[in-house]
Amino acid sequence: MNTLILTQDDVRSLLNMKDTIAEVETAYKSFNSGEVIQPPIMSIILPDLNAETDIKSSYSASTEMICVKSAPGYWDNVKKYNMPTLFATINLFDGKNGFPVCIMEATLITGIRTGAAGGVSVKALARKDSRVVGIIGAGNQARMQLRAIKLVLPITTVKVWSHIPSEMESYKKDMEAELGVQVIPCDTPETAVIGSDIIVTVTPGNKPIVMDEWVKPGTHICAIGADVEGKQELDVKLFSRAKVVVDSKMQCTTGGETLNAIKAGIITADDIHAEIGEVLLGKKTGRTSDEEITIFDSTGMSVQDNATAAGIYKRALEKSIGLSIKFV
Amino acid sequence: MNTLILTQDDVRSLLNMKDTIAEVETAYKSFNSGEVIQPPIMSIILPDLNAETDIKSSYSASTEMICVKSAPGYWDNVKKYNMPTLFATINLFDGKNGFPVCIMEATLITGIRTGAAGGVSVKALARKDSRVVGIIGAGNQARMQLRAIKLVLPITTVKVWSHIPSEMESYKKDMEAELGVQVIPCDTPETAVIGSDIIVTVTPGNKPIVMDEWVKPGTHICAIGADVEGKQELDVKLFSRAKVVVDSKMQCTTGGETLNAIKAGIITADDIHAEIGEVLLGKKTGRTSDEEITIFDSTGMSVQDNATAAGIYKRALEKSIGLSIKFV
Repeated sequence: MNTLILTQDDVRSLLNMKDTIAEVETAYKSFNSGEVIQPPIMSIILPDLNAETDIKSSYSASTEMICVKSAPGYWDNVKKYNMPTLFATINLFDGKNGFPVCIMEATLITGIRTGAAGGVSVKALARKDSRVVGIIGAGNQARMQLRAIKLVLPITTVKVWSHIPSEMESYKKDMEAELGVQVIPCDTPETAVIGSDIIVTVTPGNKPIVMDEWVKPGTHICAIGADVEGKQELDVKLFSRAKVVVDSKMQCTTGGETLNAIKAGIITADDIHAEIGEVLLGKKTGRTSDEEITIFDSTGMSVQDNATAAGIYKRALEKSIGLSIKFV
Repeated sequence: MNTLILTQDDVRSLLNMKDTIAEVETAYKSFNSGEVIQPPIMSIILPDLNAETDIKSSYSASTEMICVKSAPGYWDNVKKYNMPTLFATINLFDGKNGFPVCIMEATLITGIRTGAAGGVSVKALARKDSRVVGIIGAGNQARMQLRAIKLVLPITTVKVWSHIPSEMESYKKDMEAELGVQVIPCDTPETAVIGSDIIVTVTPGNKPIVMDEWVKPGTHICAIGADVEGKQELDVKLFSRAKVVVDSKMQCTTGGETLNAIKAGIITADDIHAEIGEVLLGKKTGRTSDEEITIFDSTGMSVQDNATAAGIYKRALEKSIGLSIKFV
């Protein structure tokens, strides 16, 4: 038996947001169907090097794969070495017998599966007549979110805010060309938020940037950026009037945006309405009125990597992409 | 920058017990010098498939590498698929910047670094005039242990016991030819143990097989087989008259042979004399008399994988072995 090696270029050629949305949706459902084993995240934190390596693993009966993603983040790489700050590999093992079927470069996978997560939440929780998206942040993940959302709803207008004006201009140029939507750079987060039907937060911030009083009834919020303790993008008061849906209760109450609201005493863990897989499976309700505010708190789960990587592996086999070697 | 892919054949050609003993010794010292970050082991247990995948990771300032080993064990593979039961991969990331420098097939690495662990303990804790080794078990790891021990002491005689007579005969034939020692197959564990200076236990057993009354003063015991809760090879009474040295207090009190003695109330965690790195560094005493019984409880640490894999990677570069690809 051979093992398939997929480089970053191979993976790039196989990435596809439409497929990834379907895969992540299936992953969420599997997670809430008892088909997934997903141990707590393993972290190697090196404060002196300003670095953190996260290792996320899972078995999914849906993909029949074990997925191990190792993702070093070295935040000083650009200034120290003129190197990227993020690296990642995914090792896929056949869930039936443990054989290492594929080893892939995975830097791009976290990006696309996180974008897909936002898309899945919009499909499940946003008002169907949502047309205006407010995006806080204008980097790579802000692009991923918009690509995913555009695939699930016919949005027309995007109001973007970033503290770096040139980033907003690139974002406008790229996204208008790629997606045919109107992109409006905003001077303040407030301008981007007020009047938006969907709000997406994708910054590395550590204090509230979307204030409660700016958010109108009926809004859906994708809270993407805050995924570990200490990060924050939303005013905790928003949680008191929102239906809170998370990817993983365990992760969101120990490291997500939801943790901030719990720490502030605004809600308790019991106030979390559902994990998104429960909504997708119909075990819990989704949006029940046009006035409801819904928050989707995404921290990122291994089962998303598992489903996305398994999809890429499958397409690589179909298209004969990658290097097949006698590894074992 | 390129990434090096090392297949099982590549790794086999680079394995070297002498180097591995030196690397594991350095690893133990690093572990007890505050140079290592080693998160708890991550396990994906699939009872329905009789399978367990363990993921062990570490950063070592000594190797300047992050090592992530993923090791599926599927115990029904032989009968179900006529496939091996164990697979493993190691991904090495540059500890300075996170770049994935090497991905290697690692099935053979656990074997050799575990053998080296026994050798390091013999060097540190056994009487220098030890000449007779009693080995309980006659499989692959029984070979690894003997190779390592023979490199650190001039042993002459090996008494081996296994419940499979044909295994003992193969062991005798192979080890006598390879190491120039006399190997005596034994009818009972008792015969193998009585009179031995060093005892090595390398079975997958779950009840005592080496009884307290068989063990003479001055013996060193390498307790290798029992590495998770439920496994056992030693009579717990041995712990009441032995100096107990472990690889990791955390691992040995939650999953090693030592756990059995603690559960039985024979010792408490405070009675563990030292982690072996402390002995190697001179922070704690080793053997202090020819009458002392020493037990080394090995559960296997990521830092051993890290040091062994880093050594293999270094030798691969020196010898231009492996496939260097543009992975990222």
